[in-house]
Amino acid sequence: MKSSNLFLPLRKESPQEAEIISHQLMLKSGMISNTASGIYSWLPLGVKVLNKITNIIREELEAASVNEVIMPIVQPASLWQESGRYDDYGKEMVRLKDRHDRDMLLGPTAEEIVTDIFRKSVKSYKELPVNLYQINWKFRDEIRPRFGVMRAREFLMKDAYSFDIDEAAAVETYQKYYRTYLKIFRRLGVTAIPVRAVTGAIGGNLSHEFHILAETGESQIFAEKALFEQVENGNYDFNSLKDFYAAADEMHDESKCDAKDLVTKRGIEVGHIFNFGTKYSEPLKALVANKEGKNTAVNMGSYGIGVSRVLAAIIESSHDENGIIWPEEVCPFKVVVNPLKVKDEAVMSKANEIYEKLKANKVEVLLDDSNKSPGEKFASHDLIGIPTQIIIGPRSLAEGKVEVKTRSTGERVEVLVDDVFGIVTNN
Amino acid sequence: MKSSNLFLPLRKESPQEAEIISHQLMLKSGMISNTASGIYSWLPLGVKVLNKITNIIREELEAASVNEVIMPIVQPASLWQESGRYDDYGKEMVRLKDRHDRDMLLGPTAEEIVTDIFRKSVKSYKELPVNLYQINWKFRDEIRPRFGVMRAREFLMKDAYSFDIDEAAAVETYQKYYRTYLKIFRRLGVTAIPVRAVTGAIGGNLSHEFHILAETGESQIFAEKALFEQVENGNYDFNSLKDFYAAADEMHDESKCDAKDLVTKRGIEVGHIFNFGTKYSEPLKALVANKEGKNTAVNMGSYGIGVSRVLAAIIESSHDENGIIWPEEVCPFKVVVNPLKVKDEAVMSKANEIYEKLKANKVEVLLDDSNKSPGEKFASHDLIGIPTQIIIGPRSLAEGKVEVKTRSTGERVEVLVDDVFGIVTNN
Repeated sequence: MKSSNLFLPLRKESPQEAEIISHQLMLKSGMISNTASGIYSWLPLGVKVLNKITNIIREELEAASVNEVIMPIVQPASLWQESGRYDDYGKEMVRLKDRHDRDMLLGPTAEEIVTDIFRKSVKSYKELPVNLYQINWKFRDEIRPRFGVMRAREFLMKDAYSFDIDEAAAVETYQKYYRTYLKIFRRLGVTAIPVRAVTGAIGGNLSHEFHILAETGESQIFAEKALFEQVENGNYDFNSLKDFYAAADEMHDESKCDAKDLVTKRGIEVGHIFNFGTKYSEPLKALVANKEGKNTAVNMGSYGIGVSRVLAAIIESSHDENGIIWPEEVCPFKVVVNPLKVKDEAVMSKANEIYEKLKANKVEVLLDDSNKSPGEKFASHDLIGIPTQIIIGPRSLAEGKVEVKTRSTGERVEVLVDDVFGIVTNN
Repeated sequence: MKSSNLFLPLRKESPQEAEIISHQLMLKSGMISNTASGIYSWLPLGVKVLNKITNIIREELEAASVNEVIMPIVQPASLWQESGRYDDYGKEMVRLKDRHDRDMLLGPTAEEIVTDIFRKSVKSYKELPVNLYQINWKFRDEIRPRFGVMRAREFLMKDAYSFDIDEAAAVETYQKYYRTYLKIFRRLGVTAIPVRAVTGAIGGNLSHEFHILAETGESQIFAEKALFEQVENGNYDFNSLKDFYAAADEMHDESKCDAKDLVTKRGIEVGHIFNFGTKYSEPLKALVANKEGKNTAVNMGSYGIGVSRVLAAIIESSHDENGIIWPEEVCPFKVVVNPLKVKDEAVMSKANEIYEKLKANKVEVLLDDSNKSPGEKFASHDLIGIPTQIIIGPRSLAEGKVEVKTRSTGERVEVLVDDVFGIVTNN
């Protein structure tokens, strides 16, 4: 894409309204625009990264045989009265009446809806397990929305739901999601630590939170050193990880970690998984015939990832004084081609040539065809965090050379024009 | 995907609540589940087709240099008061108050939000044109929702918005969307006819609707024979199409089509494009400096496609007594592999082999590993409309043969097992 075709409203000044770095950087880099208190519009650069994140989540869930659905945003209150949860969310639940005066709400989560879908069609254990997920906007009317998309009133969430015949099967399913979550976060280029969790409004007995490590994180994570090491090495096995001590502030208990090699780090909660047995299937009568032909309430779990929150957490965990440093896996563009003088014909023609070649090879590339000063261009590419920058200046080009800059290290190397394609695509 | 991993709750009986064929077939084929009056959950088969449609729309808009954004579902009333439209939608607008008693609404469209985004950052003609689109859920509190997703209260819409310096540039932009729309519908495998339109609540002076042809369509289309021919032949040129007479019921005027070779067909409105000049940019003060340095209100347009409606319209235009006949372009699976006896080892092993080979070659394939009767399996594959069906029975297989059935024609041919991959992938 050429920057002349990209709506990228960068801000030079640091936004006064933003308290945390991810919020500041998202506003400065033109990823979001504030529409109302705690309500944001996502601009093209933000959507590109969101789509990267949702694609990775989709791929891993599909690989785990979880089916995509889309549940309604406006939900009937009647289903929440059936489950007994209509009052649990208090004022954080956005309530409304439709034109026929029926009570409706904007879904903060979808246990009731998905249980309703299930009970309408599944009648036998033979049809189990059922695993469904959606990626859709959720609503929570925060009293004081803050921290940008990190604690917004409208946020993008991936929520999955499982249905199994009994607890043993449900626990196996739970472990599948636990492994899948570790894979997802690894593919997103971040370290996320699973810790035991309280179950809150969702309810249940088995629950883990996943926290992305970031110095600016709001939670304190207490966990054994070996757990951090294993997660960083890509060990996804529930059974080999479950016995390590790992807790966030609210669940931390000094008395339980005596003599353990404990490490304390800060983290941002981005995922939460629950097994809650028959908490919803009993009141909503989601029953199936078991092997003996007896009707039994299904065993359920739910599995959330705050998608828009993950994006902000990645920025919290990966930035410097010049801006965002996107992990390769979620960057909006892998490469920016930066002709320092767009009015120099040789420079611009070489820039176009490199750009077209990368594009033809499916490399996500931005051509900065703007007429800004070199300093402004460097600053904006660093700000929006593109991993690899190809800098084309008249003097180097006369010697058959261009520069390749790596955003994460700041390193700049001069390379032969003929080598640049190979260098960039092997990156 | 294996059918044992797919949540596909088929219904045998014809749903009493459904008045039109697309609604009946979507319920029977497990594409949607009714959650409340006019509010649907989309099940895996429905999501697969929706995703196919949105991918095609995205590709064509990106090719036309339109940038994806995501605007909030909950919008502040204040922006609609600024434009003067807060009362225009009447009871069809879903209104609510947040916990601080501020008036909010669920967006039926987003002219105000996008104009607000624009005015906050664009200051000069040099930054124009700006073209933005989103694909997101919209809300209209229909007094009597009906016809399934065709006239639902919550529906998926693609809405795009353009900003140009003057009317001449805006008209060129308008023509770009006109061409892009014809391309999109052609890629969706349907014929959509552009007709002149009234502008209604959006306002403006230049406007076309796009109607997918279907015998069950709610609108009557009156257009010159040559227009139908040109659209069917893939002529996307606004200038060569604009002079033909083409109107739907409400705009049809007998006195204007004397002596013209008029054809009358039924259609379903699925798209609507508008140029409305400065209707929003003036009240919302979306001004930019023009070449002379003078502040001037930008010239805008908006461009909608009812995505969930398109899906239903495709079914209306392409089905038979046995079920849906998906165009190749939007089918949920291209091929179903149907082992007639899953307990026959030779049959099942050959079915698995063909399935794995197709999957490895990126063919979207369903393996029906259910233990249903052959009759039930045939009926369900016809119902859900998979274009190509590979039928593997013990007797033919003993002779080294399988059957390939084409859904659209019902034709079945016996082919050598070794040829089936080539035949299916050349289809």
